[in-house]
Amino acid sequence: MNHLQMLQQINTLAAFNRWCGLEVVHAEAGSATLQLDWRDELGQYSGFLHAGLVATLIDTACGFAAATMAGPHLLAAHFSVNCLRPATGSRFTARARVTKPGKSQVFTACDLYAQGENGDILVANGQTLLTVVPAPTTRR
Amino acid sequence: MNHLQMLQQINTLAAFNRWCGLEVVHAEAGSATLQLDWRDELGQYSGFLHAGLVATLIDTACGFAAATMAGPHLLAAHFSVNCLRPATGSRFTARARVTKPGKSQVFTACDLYAQGENGDILVANGQTLLTVVPAPTTRR
Amino acid sequence: MNHLQMLQQINTLAAFNRWCGLEVVHAEAGSATLQLDWRDELGQYSGFLHAGLVATLIDTACGFAAATMAGPHLLAAHFSVNCLRPATGSRFTARARVTKPGKSQVFTACDLYAQGENGDILVANGQTLLTVVPAPTTRR
Amino acid sequence: MNHLQMLQQINTLAAFNRWCGLEVVHAEAGSATLQLDWRDELGQYSGFLHAGLVATLIDTACGFAAATMAGPHLLAAHFSVNCLRPATGSRFTARARVTKPGKSQVFTACDLYAQGENGDILVANGQTLLTVVPAPTTRR
Repeated sequence: MNHLQMLQQINTLAAFNRWCGLEVVHAEAGSATLQLDWRDELGQYSGFLHAGLVATLIDTACGFAAATMAGPHLLAAHFSVNCLRPATGSRFTARARVTKPGKSQVFTACDLYAQGENGDILVANGQTLLTVVPAPTTRR
Repeated sequence: MNHLQMLQQINTLAAFNRWCGLEVVHAEAGSATLQLDWRDELGQYSGFLHAGLVATLIDTACGFAAATMAGPHLLAAHFSVNCLRPATGSRFTARARVTKPGKSQVFTACDLYAQGENGDILVANGQTLLTVVPAPTTRR
Repeated sequence: MNHLQMLQQINTLAAFNRWCGLEVVHAEAGSATLQLDWRDELGQYSGFLHAGLVATLIDTACGFAAATMAGPHLLAAHFSVNCLRPATGSRFTARARVTKPGKSQVFTACDLYAQGENGDILVANGQTLLTVVPAPTTRR
Repeated sequence: MNHLQMLQQINTLAAFNRWCGLEVVHAEAGSATLQLDWRDELGQYSGFLHAGLVATLIDTACGFAAATMAGPHLLAAHFSVNCLRPATGSRFTARARVTKPGKSQVFTACDLYAQGENGDILVANGQTLLTVVPAPTTRR
């Protein structure tokens, strides 16, 4: 199973990722790319992509990039988002990369693009610091 | 219209807030409290509340706290989240407060609690820096 | 050796802390307070306390608060600072506290006050995420 | 006066920058590079470059990069730092760039390298969100 297949499998296991419609479209060692198509129920009060979904895209793409190097047993410890421009467009693409791998901690960063009439523009960026956890944790 | 009514109205205007089921349960000058009931489609791959929804709760509560002092025309410029403990519980409560009001920028902070068998525990905290925007922005 | 004495000893070992004139004035399990007296060489281009020294106070106080619970072998993984008001005053006081202790990670937060003519005012706040390291690391 | 000369002049006006020995070595529209030579009084308790000086380098380089696009009247509103590796070396180089310019807010990012026996390695990265202020503010 290659990186893309592993991430697509994890993506399928997450109920919220399925509802949102997150798709893993690219992965290699140290990076991952997610896409999300706009629909009305993703909007905040003035119709932009909700900041919580901007965070969802960035944090998930960062976690997936980390998983290509550290395996799937990771938890986000801290993440942050810069809202650079209004997040409007027909499709959103989050491109994440590992900035520093490690045995116990993985540092990552991500750029979020919105597809508009004149091509992709950068609408947000962010970063996630992930902790490698010893074993899978399951909620019942 | 008091603070709580104003925030409940804004909350109704945001499609994503409606889908999530976010409820504004308390507001006064400088603070706001949001609640969200757990359901399966809010989960990440191991069944905890998805980090994107942790961010949604924190960022939205921060924006609402800011709106009680600066009015509703605000955009998040930067926000960050600390994931302190696994976010599991039957209900999540985000308590946000303004740490520094201002004419052009509002600094806020938020604690997120999960309701479990033994009462509420702190599962995450975070902060949002909001920019006051001159006029309402509408997406069509 | 109590918490205050332990931190004062660590503070003495750090060359930069000595040059700055950082003083540990209070400590108990889960919190620590640092003070720094203003002098001209601490200023940025318009004479406020340099943002790097705002960070020094916040990050050091956070690390010291963490050390009261996790011992001295800690490294900052991530820290952030909000500059709320111009940092001017005759003395600066950083009050840090542990927000979530842990075996491998410690989350902390800090408020920075400036002493002016009308008492202390909050000029910045921030947070540090520290990693517990297995053994002392020494530079030669 | 070109970008480099403007930044070197601002750098000279800041007392703390002079004491540290910060040097502006490169600047163009949207980016700036700072250098700092190691000496013992810059160390934390185990002899690495103090996190407060890591922040000084990153925050100052970010502010200088912003100044090449927005002019010198800027204040940091928020900044954050990731400590990726122990900051040890004979010289430190901070390379900052504007990620999103704006009339009222400028988003920036920075990588910090340490010069060792085998060339430069990335030891930290960070970001600063700056606010454009209407007029110079002076402290007396």
